[in-house]
Order: sequence, then structure tokens, then C-alpha cells
Amino acid sequence: MQADDSLAVPKSLLSVSATCLKILDQRALPGSVRYLDCSHVDEVIDAIGCLAVRGAPAIGLAAAFGLILNLEGQPENAQQIMQELNARGDRLIASRPTAVNLAWAVDQMLTYAQSPECDLGSPGWREKLYAQAQSLFEADREACRKIGEAGLPLLEGRRNILTHCNAGALAVSEYGTALAPIYAAKALGRTVNVWVDETRPLLQGARLTAFELMAHGVSCQLITDNMAAHVMASGQVDLVLVGADRVAANGDAANKIGTLGLAVLAHHFKIPFVVACPWSTIDLETGLGTDIVIEERNVDEVCGFQGVRSAPEGMNAFNPAFDVTPADLITAIVTEHGILSPPFSEGLRAGFGDR
Amino acid sequence: MQADDSLAVPKSLLSVSATCLKILDQRALPGSVRYLDCSHVDEVIDAIGCLAVRGAPAIGLAAAFGLILNLEGQPENAQQIMQELNARGDRLIASRPTAVNLAWAVDQMLTYAQSPECDLGSPGWREKLYAQAQSLFEADREACRKIGEAGLPLLEGRRNILTHCNAGALAVSEYGTALAPIYAAKALGRTVNVWVDETRPLLQGARLTAFELMAHGVSCQLITDNMAAHVMASGQVDLVLVGADRVAANGDAANKIGTLGLAVLAHHFKIPFVVACPWSTIDLETGLGTDIVIEERNVDEVCGFQGVRSAPEGMNAFNPAFDVTPADLITAIVTEHGILSPPFSEGLRAGFGDR
Repeated sequence: MQADDSLAVPKSLLSVSATCLKILDQRALPGSVRYLDCSHVDEVIDAIGCLAVRGAPAIGLAAAFGLILNLEGQPENAQQIMQELNARGDRLIASRPTAVNLAWAVDQMLTYAQSPECDLGSPGWREKLYAQAQSLFEADREACRKIGEAGLPLLEGRRNILTHCNAGALAVSEYGTALAPIYAAKALGRTVNVWVDETRPLLQGARLTAFELMAHGVSCQLITDNMAAHVMASGQVDLVLVGADRVAANGDAANKIGTLGLAVLAHHFKIPFVVACPWSTIDLETGLGTDIVIEERNVDEVCGFQGVRSAPEGMNAFNPAFDVTPADLITAIVTEHGILSPPFSEGLRAGFGDR
Repeated sequence: MQADDSLAVPKSLLSVSATCLKILDQRALPGSVRYLDCSHVDEVIDAIGCLAVRGAPAIGLAAAFGLILNLEGQPENAQQIMQELNARGDRLIASRPTAVNLAWAVDQMLTYAQSPECDLGSPGWREKLYAQAQSLFEADREACRKIGEAGLPLLEGRRNILTHCNAGALAVSEYGTALAPIYAAKALGRTVNVWVDETRPLLQGARLTAFELMAHGVSCQLITDNMAAHVMASGQVDLVLVGADRVAANGDAANKIGTLGLAVLAHHFKIPFVVACPWSTIDLETGLGTDIVIEERNVDEVCGFQGVRSAPEGMNAFNPAFDVTPADLITAIVTEHGILSPPFSEGLRAGFGDR
């Protein structure tokens, strides 16, 4: 583990070689910038489970690299290699259930591994898998850049934006999803003010989004999650912009716990509510939001923060990590292919076909 | 300051003599039970400002006792005594702006001090003022007991109740306001399950409501504020029950930040949203909720969690301590005089006349 006191946003949250995946440990932000050196898939699984790396696209990319980490010990036998990759893939997918990008990235890698192009066991197969993971990373970066461009029109005449959790550069390869249009607007010299929900229990808004936006010089103000209604009621929010961990075929979107509440509030106060995500977050296999498995995490996260206990010992608690926003509360879904308007089912199906 | 490791709910959050007001320091709960010994009105003002004592009725009662604390040094001259009482009253009222009970209690005391019955300066005037403050305390206790009884019918067929902040015994003389009907139902052997919003930034739900309910053996579960929408959407909430810090003449209610959001959610999910408070919280002088002054507190409360800094240094933040729920989102207001249904204006005016 390395420590670095610099608070500039790290250039990349993942850096990689064939033998080591270096993961920015986001649990330590914004206090310090340190990295976990993972040389085994188990370490990547642990890093995903403990949220050292988080954000739907980012955990997908970490999984893609984790899947192929240190395959040096493997025999040059396609069947045995595939067996190992499948076993790793199953365990990676099980490490967090809600975000679809994890399963999507593993599936992309396994499909490629079985392709004639990769030709497992033949000379250079390790390099080809590594290049495939790199290309997923590059594709995510390009998708995020395009989400930024595609989302720009939604910010016209709407300078006060509320966001939840972290759907920024720290959640993806670069640029972010929900934050990508904000960075794009900032780059064009437009005025943007961002309300940052702190996002209990793990405070990804206070720790990560605040950190990113400050580092990029974007005007922003932190609030506790329960203040969103008050700032909306007082006319200080023009747009709610969030990411997603899985979008069902009908447009229902799972995202960080608290998103559903914001969508209901935005609907009540007649404020557009927009979801931004790459296509890898769209899951046409899942018909409805109610079909999405919601991860429940340790209740200690709710009973305190970073080891400081707030609730009495022995208190019962509930800790769903995500909630599902029904499609009818979503004004638009922005992806690298553009802006989708309701009803989403058709657009999602068509867009997927275009990929 | 005394310390006591017992975690039973203290019998009273205020205990009092002519020379000392002992205030339960709620900042230390649930970790430890300790008291502040106040022998001067300034110490009471500090205790109110730093939230050692909080809850609209409780700060009113603390102010009533603070107003008359150690008047021994005063000359036996009615005019000079009144001057001192008025000066203390002004400073007490200024210590927190939103809850009306503070101004109400001070006004009750000052009105009594000017009455022929008190006869300032004549033998026994100090004892009479003390007895008057005691009678406000007893009246609050009786009001809370009656709120508990009056609210019981609202819990029939509704066992899953969500509450916000602390409107329990720790916010008043005894029993609580929003929690009073819950304690009354529990005393009758009915099944009640309470969802406790942790209530950022100061966590009065996690620290105080959780502590009270556990000590009373009421089944309860802690959630972060942003989980309320998810538990409502999944059909696990039958009733939202909260207190208030000031109710305007039209029924708009100021309460702890986050209450407005719950009211919007309850409306969306078709769940009754009920405000419980004593009549001392009704402010007919304030016509509309928009006329209520909302206290803004130090942003450090938002940028950290019990002394652990979460946001980056230098982060901007916003920290309104209350929000205002419009009357049209309130299903009922419960007071010691019974249940008021919308439209509230007439009932509030009539009820006030009955006092």
C-alpha cells in the first residue's frame, strides 16, 4: 500500500500490468490517496466487496482485469484455462449483486476468451486477454466522454444541479456518468452549481463527489441527504442528475439508496430527474425494477461512521445499498448513444440493437 | 458535570432548584448519561444553543427555569426585577429562532411576573415564579400524556410507524409528542414497530430515539434518512409520525430538517403523515409556514460525523436545521385537545380559543 498526501484527483483509479492491478482505495478519500496492489483475483474480490473500488462501471473494469490477473501459473491448455476463468468469473460476479456492469464485464471477457480470435493456449493468448480488458477500459472512457456531450443540452438553462452518491470519474474510467455533462459544461465555461448529497451511510457524496468537484473547480455545496427537499422547495434545484447500477428493460433504474426518494421529490417539485449511465448498465435480461436484487450490507454502516458509533449497542438496523426508481419518475436516460425519453422500453431495445 | 454509565432513560431531562438547573446533556447520549449544572441564565442559553437540551417543548421549559435562576442578588424592587427578567427573556428567545415554544414559555413567565398574583418584590415572589415554571412543566407533562391518548386511534391497524429526529421523552417533560401514542400503544400491549430515521446531521434519531425506544422495549429499526423512500415503497410503513417546532395558523409545520421530504414521500406512497405537538407549538401569530425563520447552523455539522471529518477541507456546505411542511401534505395534527383534520386553519383557531 502506498500513501500520498496530494489531494489532486488521481489520474486513474485503476492502473494495471499483467501481474498487478493497482486500485485506488476510495475508502481513504478524501483524507489520503493510497492504492491497493492486487496480485490475485481474491484481492480484487475483497477490494470490490469492501468498496475500495466502487461505482458500477469501475467495478466492472476492476473485475475484467481481476479475471486475468497472474494467469502465468496456468497450463497452456484451453480447457483448463477456461475452467479457471469461469471459476474466477463466478466469484467476481458474486462479490456484489446489484450493479449489472460487473456481470457484463465478466461476460465480455469470457466470451472473448472463447472466441477463435483469442485462441486460448496459443501463443500470445494472455496478451490478447489483457488487450481485451484494456479495450473495455477505453470503451468506458469513450462512453463517458460521449455521455458528457450527450447530456449537455439538458443543462441548458439549468445551472443548479443536485446529484447523489458519486457518479463521477471515481466511479468509472474517466469523466464520470452523471458528472460527465457537468464537467463538459464547465469545460465550455458555463456556470454550474452542484448540490452534493452526502449519501449516507458511506458518504460517497461528501467524500468522493465533493473531492472531485472541488479538484475540478466546479462550484458545489454539500448537504445531508434529508436537506434535498428543502433546497428543491426553495427553488434552488433545476435538475437532478444521478448515475445507475442497473437499468431494467422497462427503464426502472437501481442506484444508490436514496435515489428513489430524490426522484419522488423531483416529481413533486416538477424538477427534471435524469439518469446517466453507459450502455453496459442497461440490462434487457431484467424486465422490471422489482426483479433487481438489492444488496444488503452490514448494519454497522448505518449504526455509525468510520468506527464512530452513533446508535446504542444492540440497535436493530436495515442497510439496503440500493433502491429502484420506477421509470415513470425518470425524465430522461442519457447514455453514450444520446438522450432517451419515456416510455423507455422501445428506446432501450432499439439502442441496444445499435451497439 | 456528573457522569453516570447507566443507560436507562433518565427520569427527567431537567431537574431544578432555585439555584441550579440540572440539564441532561443530550450530546453525550447514548454513550453516557451526564448532566450540566447551570447556575446562571448564560449557562442555560449556552446549553440551548449547543443542543445539550433540544426539542421544542424541552427548550421552552429550560428557558422558563433559566429565566428565574438565581434571582437572589436582585433588589426587592418590582421595576428592576422586571427589567432583569425582560433582559433575560430577550436573550433566551434569541438563542434559537425556529421553535415557538421557547418564546411561548418566556412569554408565559413574563406575563405571570407582571400579574397582581405574582406581585414582584412582595414576600414570596421568587417562590411564586418558581411554582409558575413548575406548573408549565406539569402542564407539558399532562399535555404529552393526552397527546398519547389522543393519537392512539391513528395507530389502529397501523403497526409500522416511521419517525424522524426525536420527538420523545427526551424532547419534552415526559412521554414525548410523536412517540407518546407509540408508548401508549405499547402500554396497552399492542404491537408497534418503529422505523427510526437517523436524522443527520446531529443524529438525534440514532442517538436519542433509538435509545428511548430500546429502553422502553419498543421494537425498532434504524435507517439512514435516505432509506425512508425504499421502506415506504416496499409497503413497510403504515404511518409517518413526527413532532413540530412551530405550527403556523394555516397548519404549515416547521420541524427538523428532513421532515418535508418524508411528507412528500408519504403523500406519494399514500401513507398518512401525522404531526403531534402540544398547543404551545401552535403559533397563530405566524400566518404561513413561509413566515417561519429557519435556523442555519454551523456547516461543520454537515461536513463531518461526530467529529470525524467526511468532506474535504474547505468544502462549502449548507445547514438549515429545519424545514417547513405545507399543511396540504399533513393528514392530521394531534394535540392534547385531540386530532385535527384538514383544513387546519379553523380548528387551530377554535382549539386555541378553548385553552
